[in-house]
Amino acid sequence: MTIQAHRPRGRRPGRANTRESIIAAALTLFSEMGYEKVSLRAIARAADVDPALIHHYFANKADLFARSVLDIPLDAEDIVRRILDGPEEGIGERTIAAFLDAWDRPGAGDRFTAMLRSAVTEQNARRPLSEFMCKEVLVKVAEALGHSNARLRAQLGVSLILGLALGRDILELPAVAKARNPVLIKAVGLAMQAHLVDPW
Amino acid sequence: MTIQAHRPRGRRPGRANTRESIIAAALTLFSEMGYEKVSLRAIARAADVDPALIHHYFANKADLFARSVLDIPLDAEDIVRRILDGPEEGIGERTIAAFLDAWDRPGAGDRFTAMLRSAVTEQNARRPLSEFMCKEVLVKVAEALGHSNARLRAQLGVSLILGLALGRDILELPAVAKARNPVLIKAVGLAMQAHLVDPW
Repeated sequence: MTIQAHRPRGRRPGRANTRESIIAAALTLFSEMGYEKVSLRAIARAADVDPALIHHYFANKADLFARSVLDIPLDAEDIVRRILDGPEEGIGERTIAAFLDAWDRPGAGDRFTAMLRSAVTEQNARRPLSEFMCKEVLVKVAEALGHSNARLRAQLGVSLILGLALGRDILELPAVAKARNPVLIKAVGLAMQAHLVDPW
Repeated sequence: MTIQAHRPRGRRPGRANTRESIIAAALTLFSEMGYEKVSLRAIARAADVDPALIHHYFANKADLFARSVLDIPLDAEDIVRRILDGPEEGIGERTIAAFLDAWDRPGAGDRFTAMLRSAVTEQNARRPLSEFMCKEVLVKVAEALGHSNARLRAQLGVSLILGLALGRDILELPAVAKARNPVLIKAVGLAMQAHLVDPW
């Protein structure tokens, strides 16, 4: 009997492989269908694992999205808490800071840019990243502030962030590409404040 | 002798053809090199016409850009005047209104969207549209307001507008795509006000 034989056999893969199978299935489904329409049950089915195993490895759908699509750990609920925690006039700045923080992590920027490129190129608008940003962060912030038009505000917020990524990282507009994060946080934070907080 | 024979012969084409040759050469050069680096002299050379003829058909470089790349008549100097003319707190709204007005003209939207797609897809960032919007409109507005960081403000303004186009026309974020222009002008106008007018 070899060491090999001690490993579980059959169609259910071992522990490490289970997690990888879930991540691979999630990446495929999110990429093909966007964020909102994909259920954890569908991911379990595609990965051929018990749905309970997903909850064993991942806190929730947002966590699995971050680990699979963005390839970084990201606690969306914690980001929402940190954006809302503090003076209301700083919400726009804290929102931009949170996104730049995620965006600028090693490896994440290339993922974001690739997703933005593919979202723009694909004929059928597949928008996992913008749906994730809306649903798990910006809608929650706008709703916590009591806005009745939270979805519109959140989607304008996403447009603002994607426009910033477009200008800085893809078109490389010189002054934006050269600007340091504190400047961008202050300047674009004011615009985000107008989208998420200010009365219209 | 046929009617054909009354037309001018040789390498210099007739009137209508001259204008078309200039437009075709301009479209090629702007698309390949962006807006800023292309001179009217270079366009004349590429079209094989006398530079004076360009001034005969087109008011200036911005006019030729609009006619060739955007395929619409667009008086950039007039747009700047109209943005600046009126209360300072309305500059953001008037800027968004001017861009939506151009964007929503028949045929123009498809051009804009195609340019945005190609700017995102191309490896070498070629950005005729964003350079044109910056140089001929937004930098002039920011400079007229006395800002020392006019270029950064203008480029953030371009990022905001391209983000709006991305969200509305390419990703088709539902609430943004459904929003009527007066709502977008008010909401995104506030964000543009933050970029172009407000102190940071």
